[in-house]
Amino acid sequence: MPTQFDPPSGTRDFLAADFEARERVFATIRAVFSRYGFEPLQTPAFERLDVLLGKYGEDGDKLVFKILRRGEHEASGEADLALRYDLTVPLARVAAAYGSRLPTPYKRYAMGPVWRADRPGKGRYREFVQCDLDTLGSSSELADAEVIHAVHDVLSELGIGEFQIQLNSRLVLAGLLDAFGVPPDLGPGVLITLDKLDKLRPEAVTAELEGRGLAAGTAGELVQALAAPDAADRVRAAIKASETGSAGLDQVDAVLALVGTRLPEGRIAFLPRLVRGLSYYTGPIWEVSSRGVPGSLAGGGRYDHLIEQLGGPDVPATGGSLGIERILLMLPDAAGEQRGRLDVAVMVMGERYARESFGFAAVARAAGLRASVYLGSSGKLGKQLKWASDQGARWCLIYGGTEHEAGAVTVRDMVSGEQTAVPVAGLGAYLARAAAV
Amino acid sequence: MPTQFDPPSGTRDFLAADFEARERVFATIRAVFSRYGFEPLQTPAFERLDVLLGKYGEDGDKLVFKILRRGEHEASGEADLALRYDLTVPLARVAAAYGSRLPTPYKRYAMGPVWRADRPGKGRYREFVQCDLDTLGSSSELADAEVIHAVHDVLSELGIGEFQIQLNSRLVLAGLLDAFGVPPDLGPGVLITLDKLDKLRPEAVTAELEGRGLAAGTAGELVQALAAPDAADRVRAAIKASETGSAGLDQVDAVLALVGTRLPEGRIAFLPRLVRGLSYYTGPIWEVSSRGVPGSLAGGGRYDHLIEQLGGPDVPATGGSLGIERILLMLPDAAGEQRGRLDVAVMVMGERYARESFGFAAVARAAGLRASVYLGSSGKLGKQLKWASDQGARWCLIYGGTEHEAGAVTVRDMVSGEQTAVPVAGLGAYLARAAAV
Repeated sequence: MPTQFDPPSGTRDFLAADFEARERVFATIRAVFSRYGFEPLQTPAFERLDVLLGKYGEDGDKLVFKILRRGEHEASGEADLALRYDLTVPLARVAAAYGSRLPTPYKRYAMGPVWRADRPGKGRYREFVQCDLDTLGSSSELADAEVIHAVHDVLSELGIGEFQIQLNSRLVLAGLLDAFGVPPDLGPGVLITLDKLDKLRPEAVTAELEGRGLAAGTAGELVQALAAPDAADRVRAAIKASETGSAGLDQVDAVLALVGTRLPEGRIAFLPRLVRGLSYYTGPIWEVSSRGVPGSLAGGGRYDHLIEQLGGPDVPATGGSLGIERILLMLPDAAGEQRGRLDVAVMVMGERYARESFGFAAVARAAGLRASVYLGSSGKLGKQLKWASDQGARWCLIYGGTEHEAGAVTVRDMVSGEQTAVPVAGLGAYLARAAAV
Repeated sequence: MPTQFDPPSGTRDFLAADFEARERVFATIRAVFSRYGFEPLQTPAFERLDVLLGKYGEDGDKLVFKILRRGEHEASGEADLALRYDLTVPLARVAAAYGSRLPTPYKRYAMGPVWRADRPGKGRYREFVQCDLDTLGSSSELADAEVIHAVHDVLSELGIGEFQIQLNSRLVLAGLLDAFGVPPDLGPGVLITLDKLDKLRPEAVTAELEGRGLAAGTAGELVQALAAPDAADRVRAAIKASETGSAGLDQVDAVLALVGTRLPEGRIAFLPRLVRGLSYYTGPIWEVSSRGVPGSLAGGGRYDHLIEQLGGPDVPATGGSLGIERILLMLPDAAGEQRGRLDVAVMVMGERYARESFGFAAVARAAGLRASVYLGSSGKLGKQLKWASDQGARWCLIYGGTEHEAGAVTVRDMVSGEQTAVPVAGLGAYLARAAAV
């Protein structure tokens, strides 16, 4: 049951363990992308409404969170701003705004929350992180291959052991429709149906194609070719006479040659039935999946005119998106990995020695350790040690009357329970040495 | 002139250099806070409207960005969500939601954007980063001192050389009003006026106090005491007979003893005229300023009942906020520091050797370097070298027919212009060695 203190529906609070687990993943991604020469871009959480609307289709527009005009206009109930819905439209705006002041090609990644007024559900949020990398200004397959390679390296470094990359080209699909004599006006609909071959039985797909008006013979042959175990070879043979199809095969082969030879055997394969829903792709397209995990871990492709359609300059472009929230779910549970909150917990044996305790915490920090004094009201050592143990502290420092007289701090090893008297002046060196073991 | 491609008024796009400069600052802050045992908390960008409204006063409420209800309710023009206005109300909500599942005390920091529909101006944004650290559940001055010490360490590590910490206590101010016979109903207004002593001449402050109904003699004495060079001593003498005043002095002295003795001489001082605008403070208050910089770099204090007023449990609390955007402006210009985008730029000498070039980039990355192949369409070495130089690459790799025959890569040092033939198999080791120099 949600309470009045829960975050809004479809959003989450991230406390320390979750926040840190997520940050570790983000840091790995940043490091890999940076190694490929992709640079970061961060745009505002909201955009002007006219920048966003009309870019995501009617259904998408409905999911945009709109922000009310303020001041005297607030009562009008009109909106003039909206929370960003993805990271691509802001990229198009930035490309338009900065133009030639951006490097050529402009290789950028963006990673941050987007907001969609979707119905929240298991693994579906209204605030979630997207992670995109894109290269604007290169029509070379090297750029496509580079994006795929970078995504591969991210997944590898995150420790996702088992995953496969499926590769196709929109030109292969166009050549296929061509070779099988699909009437041009049926093309887009046919592709939408063919995209279901990974979910529906072949007969169901054939029936749906016929329902779209495709001749029964054509529908059957098309599905048979694509659903066959040797679909890649069949499609190669079928489309190589088509100019478009042949250009598509060249794209696929170029990417396979660049990426495939550097990856483990079978990691990347030509999958002619891969469509990817969005209609804006113009060249190579790809998707990453993992056996047993529904949906894809990443996907992308070339979209040479989209940036212009979104309000930017007309530049060739290719990119990809990591399904970050899904990937985060696949990683080992963060809670198990959580280290303690503190390395060093410093007891406060009465107000008289509070200043010294405060100073010892500073000494521990200077040695690179996480340290805190006890901030509670109990003067009892037992209670303070309980707090230290709850914090997961590795060492406790105790300094009271006895220690004061001896000029030494009692260092308690919280694992062994062993206590050592360490001269005050040597405390920093002692802790640094203990931490290095 | 803003164009249609600019980000919305009061917001900013952060391209690579700015983004990275900001991230470095954020990373330093995280590291310091973590060393003090403060843990991160991240809450959603928006909260339910009722969680936010009524918490910031009438003027604050007007600055809250409200989000329209969606679906069938959208036409109503009503809002049900709002962008967070600060990080304190979300903290109160989390404290209420998690209760005893949070550690005691709960020491947390939060760093992230907040949104205010303020009139944008120089250094005043509608989207800006706030950074708060707070300790809930401790009434000890150790907690106040710890926050101040952590803020001090952040500013030091960021390289802000010159700054001063001003310290006071709300109880000192209460004792002062008491000692000077200020009628209780005038108290809050008198404090608001006294807060102007750092901006207005003493006579102007005295006049304003009289305007508030304070007896001329009292107003004059009060201002004289607070504006005097030995104000600290005068106030100590004046209020030590007041029970409240004396408790306030104890707080100030406790913090000075804990923090002051560990900081450079003169870094922290008791400033009895420090008021800090917000009325919710209940104990020690402090502010950090830097000569020549208007406003404060950080500020905070104890606010023992605020969390309850904001909807959370009734816990003692103390905390502080870093003026991140102002601090960022004080740091050396990021542009000057920017390193090149790439360490290694790999030339593509015709399609025939593209695969090898792609592979060499991977070898460079495996050696820990940032590397990219040339993605443009020019086959001319000169053009490609120009690109490499624009990227700030330290080395260029060239591999064409000659190199292919020799089984070696030409490594060009972009600083010296020197070229070395490196056997293909030894490239990774060569680059790693070169980078280590």
